[in-house]
Amino acid sequence: MAHCDPSASKAVDGGLSEEFAFAEHHGSAGRRVVLITSGGTKVPLESRTVRFLDNFSSGRRGASSAEYFLDSGYAVIFLHRHRSLYPYTRLYTGVNLLDSLQLETGKEDAGQILVDQNALPNIAKVLKRYQAVKAAGLLLPVEFNTLSEYLHLLKAAAQALSSIGSKAMFYLAAAVSDFYIPAYEMPEHKIQSSNGPLQISMKMVPKMLSPLVKDWAPKAFVISFKLETDPSILLERAWRALETYNHQTVVANVLDTRRGYVVVVTKDTQQELVLTDEEVQKEVEIEDRIVSNLTEAHSEFMSRQV
Amino acid sequence: MAHCDPSASKAVDGGLSEEFAFAEHHGSAGRRVVLITSGGTKVPLESRTVRFLDNFSSGRRGASSAEYFLDSGYAVIFLHRHRSLYPYTRLYTGVNLLDSLQLETGKEDAGQILVDQNALPNIAKVLKRYQAVKAAGLLLPVEFNTLSEYLHLLKAAAQALSSIGSKAMFYLAAAVSDFYIPAYEMPEHKIQSSNGPLQISMKMVPKMLSPLVKDWAPKAFVISFKLETDPSILLERAWRALETYNHQTVVANVLDTRRGYVVVVTKDTQQELVLTDEEVQKEVEIEDRIVSNLTEAHSEFMSRQV
Repeated sequence: MAHCDPSASKAVDGGLSEEFAFAEHHGSAGRRVVLITSGGTKVPLESRTVRFLDNFSSGRRGASSAEYFLDSGYAVIFLHRHRSLYPYTRLYTGVNLLDSLQLETGKEDAGQILVDQNALPNIAKVLKRYQAVKAAGLLLPVEFNTLSEYLHLLKAAAQALSSIGSKAMFYLAAAVSDFYIPAYEMPEHKIQSSNGPLQISMKMVPKMLSPLVKDWAPKAFVISFKLETDPSILLERAWRALETYNHQTVVANVLDTRRGYVVVVTKDTQQELVLTDEEVQKEVEIEDRIVSNLTEAHSEFMSRQV
Repeated sequence: MAHCDPSASKAVDGGLSEEFAFAEHHGSAGRRVVLITSGGTKVPLESRTVRFLDNFSSGRRGASSAEYFLDSGYAVIFLHRHRSLYPYTRLYTGVNLLDSLQLETGKEDAGQILVDQNALPNIAKVLKRYQAVKAAGLLLPVEFNTLSEYLHLLKAAAQALSSIGSKAMFYLAAAVSDFYIPAYEMPEHKIQSSNGPLQISMKMVPKMLSPLVKDWAPKAFVISFKLETDPSILLERAWRALETYNHQTVVANVLDTRRGYVVVVTKDTQQELVLTDEEVQKEVEIEDRIVSNLTEAHSEFMSRQV
């Protein structure tokens, strides 16, 4: 378990006191704070890692949700996989930067370089919003690569957020591996293909939701995500998670339809959120609906705590 | 083998005739053409893929090498992993696009958006070079995600390049998986963690170097890469590859030192290319040395073919 147990962490990195200060600052200003986790985790197969197991996730849901939480007045800690999608910037991720720039004409050197606003739709509006969020200090990015980095950073962030009680929300959208190879079972060097076919034996990752809900941030409003490929087992899995971890909400979704359909499941309720064809065409995002559903539920949750 | 055998490919995508035309056009203009492969391959563990095995590779070596080949007068087919580093653009990959842009001051709406040239060092020079390469049609990008996409696209590109004989170079820098799970052994749905610890059993990927050298492009100049974490086995592995596949050159490198040290191995020679500390400080790139070594060897190779 050495590789996966956050309590085995040696050094606490410089970012943690920053998270604490962030939570304190916004909490005492009466602002709610959401920790969003986003992107997949990397699970090394060798100590000197050449190969790793990964989870499919571009980080789209986490990054777009961050924007809607910011629009709703939340401060956001964005715990994301290195190079996964980032709020606002995500809108231009399919564009090659150099295809969107133009050298000012008529000036040999030292000319300006201009953005081709056709190549980056809505860039002026998006840039203004990004700069406003940044200037107000409302978005704190924290990066992970591996599963074990993720686990350590989640624990630290959870403890930082516990200081603001029920004003804290956890929105656990990252695609976290269920399996890992303990350090003591991992080969040091690159696995040689000349040794023949590969057998990999992986252990279960301890579920972090239990200690998060029980110990690290017991007053917080906690949402986990459940992604399945088989729709027939989706709700049962969601209910089982709520029973096991005793948190507030599961957002359940199926791989193929995740951008237009989710079910928000609590112990007593289940609400389907669906985008119509017309909404899809108008580029409405399902995260807008998810976030507005959850911010409302968070308000009710907070009012019950007082 | 169904999942990995390029001959099992159903449709040949639209990009292939493009590669053929690209090779013909540049070849008949007397230009050499290099196919660079770059980035890691994704190996799905489920048919509806949530989890996959990946190889560590940012695509840095392939992307920077492409620039040096273009500087040396080559036309470049850049077969790269989706979202891995891209020639020229790679220089700004650590910068958030929105942090490098400024709204023109004093104009409420409809103002220009300018690049902060301090945030993007040398951007004017790099942009000019990028635009010149693009205007001259010297760089043809082709993208893959999975191992099987990579294998199909490599075969197609190799066949397209066979038409220009010894003027073609293959620079196989991609980090290609040695292992995969055949389609018929793959579960359809997401593997459930409730089933307990995970056992993965992977087959060997057929080596593409054999048919490439023997059948697909028998007159081309072919370079493969060998990355190890254990320096003590590096050269032996390189020699074994040359013996097995009968191609011209292996560029051998060790994970920890790959940015400052490689060995260019042929059947009769081995040349160490090393950056001095001073060169590293001046941001000289080892790919500059690798490419100039290989373009020279390619000239000799071509002269021997006539």
